Parts: sequence; C-alpha cells; structure tokens
Amino acid sequence: MKHTLAVLALNKPGVLARIAGLLSRRAFNIESITAGHTEEPNISRLTIVVQGDDRVIDQVVKQVSKLIDVLKVERLEQNVIDRELALIKVKADPSRRSDIVDIVEIFRAHIVDVSKETMVVEMTGDEEKIDALCAVLNDHGILEMVRTGKISLARGRHTVKGD
Amino acid sequence: MKHTLAVLALNKPGVLARIAGLLSRRAFNIESITAGHTEEPNISRLTIVVQGDDRVIDQVVKQVSKLIDVLKVERLEQNVIDRELALIKVKADPSRRSDIVDIVEIFRAHIVDVSKETMVVEMTGDEEKIDALCAVLNDHGILEMVRTGKISLARGRHTVKGD
Repeated sequence: MKHTLAVLALNKPGVLARIAGLLSRRAFNIESITAGHTEEPNISRLTIVVQGDDRVIDQVVKQVSKLIDVLKVERLEQNVIDRELALIKVKADPSRRSDIVDIVEIFRAHIVDVSKETMVVEMTGDEEKIDALCAVLNDHGILEMVRTGKISLARGRHTVKGD
Repeated sequence: MKHTLAVLALNKPGVLARIAGLLSRRAFNIESITAGHTEEPNISRLTIVVQGDDRVIDQVVKQVSKLIDVLKVERLEQNVIDRELALIKVKADPSRRSDIVDIVEIFRAHIVDVSKETMVVEMTGDEEKIDALCAVLNDHGILEMVRTGKISLARGRHTVKGD
C-alpha cells in the first residue's frame, strides 16, 4: 500500500540521508520524493511516497519524527490536494508537430521547447493525468522525461506545522 | 555555487540513501531533490540541486555515478529548461479573496482550493517566479507551502541516457 508523508526538517546536510536510510532499513521503497524550501528559509518540506507494510507505517512515522533535525511528520492521505509536474521530450519532426499540439491542448499541458526533431511538453496535474498524457505521447516516442514526484497539501485550514 | 545533477538510477530501496549519504559526506548541502519514475518503470530520475565547492563537483559526479544501482549522472546547467511546482496556502477571508485572485491572475497561477479562511494557489515556473509570487502573497500571510524543487531537461535532441 502507498503512503504519503509530509516531513518538515531543518535544511542541514545529512537529514535527507538519515530519512532515506531509515526508510530503506525498514524495507519501505521510496516511490517518489521531493524536497524544497518552505516559507521559512531554514526549513525544508519533504513529500515522500513510500510503498510498504500498512501495519508498520505508523511506527515508521514515529521513528522518522525522532530523527535529528526532523521537526514534524504527518501522513497526508485524506482531504488533500495532490499535484505533480513533468517535463516530457517527444520525437516531433515537422510533419507530426500539429498532432502533438492537439494532444497537448486536450490535456491543458504546454509546449515549452521546440527543436528540429523534438518538442518538450510541460504538464501539471495528478499522477493519473500525467500517466495518461505519457501513454498518448508514447505513440510518438518519448525520448526522455523527468517528473517531480507528488507534492501534497491538506485542504482548508489545517497545516502540518499545526499553528 | 549551485549545481544541478540529473541522475538515472534503478528504482531499488537504498539507492537514494547512498546518494544522499555520499553528498552529505562530501559536505554538499542538498538544496532541493526530486525523484520520480521515468518512461521506463524500473528507472527513476533524480534532479538534485547542491551547493558546494566548484573544484570538487566533477569528482562528486564521478563518485555518484559509481554507486550501486546508479546508471548515469550528468550536470545540467546550460541550455536547459528548469521548472518547479509549488502549492501555497494563504490566509483569505472573504474580504481579501478578490485581491488574491488578482495576484494569481497576474502570475498565471491557479487557485485550486478555497475554504472559509484560506485559499490554495498552484504555481508552475522557474524558482525566481515562484519566489516572486511568494513575496507578494506573503503580505496576506502564507500559512504553509510545499515546493517540488527544480526539475531540469536539456533543450533539443540531447538526452541524459544518451541514445
């Protein structure tokens, strides 16, 4: 089963290695991870999607929250906004460009680079929507792709830091 | 100085811990990291922004590329597309909603959640653009924010895997 963890941590060397090490020792495979700074410059927020045993996830959350430089950990699974960003480079000789433009419009994605043989598509959405776009673009040939992994935020007033 | 690394690695437990551990031992602070799956389901692509000594970055790239389950490492710094995604929750009682809507339109961002006292803004762009939006929204009070960290893709035909 997949679990989404929101982690607030001090932006210090070693904190990511400690979190990743703990998850790997507990046999939780990290499906995606993102870490960026927050409204407070010395604090990072990580969103980690792990696949692992339902019975031990609460214990893992407790262990992560006890690591040095980790301030707060929360499972974000209900009533949340999930988003991911992808950049996808597809084969696109001039004869195929208009096909790709049509697909991109249907998905409300954007074309952010065009070269003689390639186009780069930018898409923001939930995982399923990005997967769907990839499936369609795959017919043209995906040359490379980079995805951020999911970020999640609770709807309404609730915040992870809890004030 | 900041460096952006694109890393292709097998999607196996422990690989992220090894990469993060190596960077931390070499005193490279990880400013942001994203890891998501690619067009090949067993391969993950990481984008890592590190701050560290210019003279040792090439050596660090070599060391990362020798780690178990790491397939390819490349510095992506010239002729690249950089993008980041952010979700920002701001204080927004009904009297302030229209102000925030105006700001969001100027930045071509989107409102993805509204509650009695809050709004959530979704924004895709480069780091500076997201920072600029945050600076403006900060006057209304940012309650919490989550950012993916940067993803990068070379413009044109070049790919990290190199075929």
